[in-house]
Amino acid sequence: MTVGIVGLGLIGGSMAIDLKRRGFASLVLGVESDPVNAAAAEKIGLVDKVVSFGECVRKSDITVLAVPVGTAVRMLPEVLDLFAAESGTEGRGRGADSCRKIVIDVCSTKEALVKAVHYHPFRGRYVATHPMAGTEYSGPWAAMPGLFDGRACIICDSHESAPSAVRTVGELYDVLNMRQIFMDSASHDVHTAYVSHISHVTSFALALTVLDKEKDEKHIFDLASGGFSSTVRLAKSNADMWVPILSQNRDNVLQVIDTYIDRMRQFREAIADDDESSVRSLIEDANRIKRIIR
Amino acid sequence: MTVGIVGLGLIGGSMAIDLKRRGFASLVLGVESDPVNAAAAEKIGLVDKVVSFGECVRKSDITVLAVPVGTAVRMLPEVLDLFAAESGTEGRGRGADSCRKIVIDVCSTKEALVKAVHYHPFRGRYVATHPMAGTEYSGPWAAMPGLFDGRACIICDSHESAPSAVRTVGELYDVLNMRQIFMDSASHDVHTAYVSHISHVTSFALALTVLDKEKDEKHIFDLASGGFSSTVRLAKSNADMWVPILSQNRDNVLQVIDTYIDRMRQFREAIADDDESSVRSLIEDANRIKRIIR
Repeated sequence: MTVGIVGLGLIGGSMAIDLKRRGFASLVLGVESDPVNAAAAEKIGLVDKVVSFGECVRKSDITVLAVPVGTAVRMLPEVLDLFAAESGTEGRGRGADSCRKIVIDVCSTKEALVKAVHYHPFRGRYVATHPMAGTEYSGPWAAMPGLFDGRACIICDSHESAPSAVRTVGELYDVLNMRQIFMDSASHDVHTAYVSHISHVTSFALALTVLDKEKDEKHIFDLASGGFSSTVRLAKSNADMWVPILSQNRDNVLQVIDTYIDRMRQFREAIADDDESSVRSLIEDANRIKRIIR
Repeated sequence: MTVGIVGLGLIGGSMAIDLKRRGFASLVLGVESDPVNAAAAEKIGLVDKVVSFGECVRKSDITVLAVPVGTAVRMLPEVLDLFAAESGTEGRGRGADSCRKIVIDVCSTKEALVKAVHYHPFRGRYVATHPMAGTEYSGPWAAMPGLFDGRACIICDSHESAPSAVRTVGELYDVLNMRQIFMDSASHDVHTAYVSHISHVTSFALALTVLDKEKDEKHIFDLASGGFSSTVRLAKSNADMWVPILSQNRDNVLQVIDTYIDRMRQFREAIADDDESSVRSLIEDANRIKRIIR
């Protein structure tokens, strides 16, 4: 099987490594618009060949859109249009049914993508997926084997995809050792706002707060311990990826930010009032997270 | 040398392990008010013997207060009073000068402690220290060898301590492989508000935000990835330790919380206004944290 990966960053690059290494893909093609990243991806050997977008879609059995979600929303209908063009001009029904090609995305928000191709005659050839794995690093040099092992992959609105396409994509994620969770795209976007997007915003805000203070206190980071590093780690995340996520998931993210600011205010008031019993019960409530993360 | 550790939790227990193992202490005595923790500490073998507070201070060359800061503020003058009583009643000068005993604390806030004994005739026998190491776990079972290796230890207001006491405490932290940073206690408390205390509050608030949502969305944590876990990790921290820290460092912590909430609001407004260029510049500003943490 030929797999084409559009976007050779952390996620696309890591998929390329394991899909080839574990025998799912006999050939991995790559598309990368940034010339430095493209050259690096070829040099590192992430993909067998870097090709144009059109060539990639034409030659691949599965095309993976591993680009920022804003770009993916633009590319996805183009890929389905190319599938349609290849399948001839017989019209809606026949062409799509005989097409065996598949396109997936791996983006962190889903609703806008699914909406963008809802009425496309080749909609069935698209499977919306979100492998929940990553690090705070980006670019082809951040790609690593085993990134996805044991993590969850969300498959959204799978009833809109052709069953055979969902099956093949299931095999792809089996090879990556991911457990699949099926969910509608609206729920996905609410969930990720809570367990992923907000923690990026809180890390960015924390980094900004302490970096501001560094202007007056040059040595402030001498005192930073492992706890601070852990909490602020996501603030290293890439703007090209996160600007479109926060934009596409705007309403959900705003709701979570508002709840979060309320909780910060509760802490602030309890501390300001020297109300130790309220501070204690807020902390003990928060400690329930022990049940969730180890 | 006999070292007495008051409070056999993560910090006290980890000090006990390495000071004995590395030969700095020939005997380690322990004090622990919680009977379960005391029994566990003896069973694990963290200390040679669990004794009473009075016996510990009487028999130890160095007493380490490794208890929550509110408790330490109460205990510290008691320890110096015991030193004075042992040194006889010759009054301020002679007794303190001839005393060789030392007490240190290892708490995360310093100003209240230093103030509490500022005029004590045996003030010179106290060295205010803050070894910047830890995990989100607590209790004697959280203690571990090597916890302090390579981390920073802050020594506060050392001009108020006897030079010989500062030297001996320096040797103790050398044995723990910590680099020492000297600072006044007021600056210490500002710095730790920024690089430690705020990240605990942001983690607590994040945990509360997502735990609230779990009431409606039972499976929300199925989607939590490594980034979320990292950001929320400190929310497992113990209330007994953190209530007094936030109380003692109240004014500094409130100032940081206010700055932090301002930054969250900036993000909120930029996202709400679909102002992608502002979101991008906030993220890129926050990315400067890469320079600090690896």
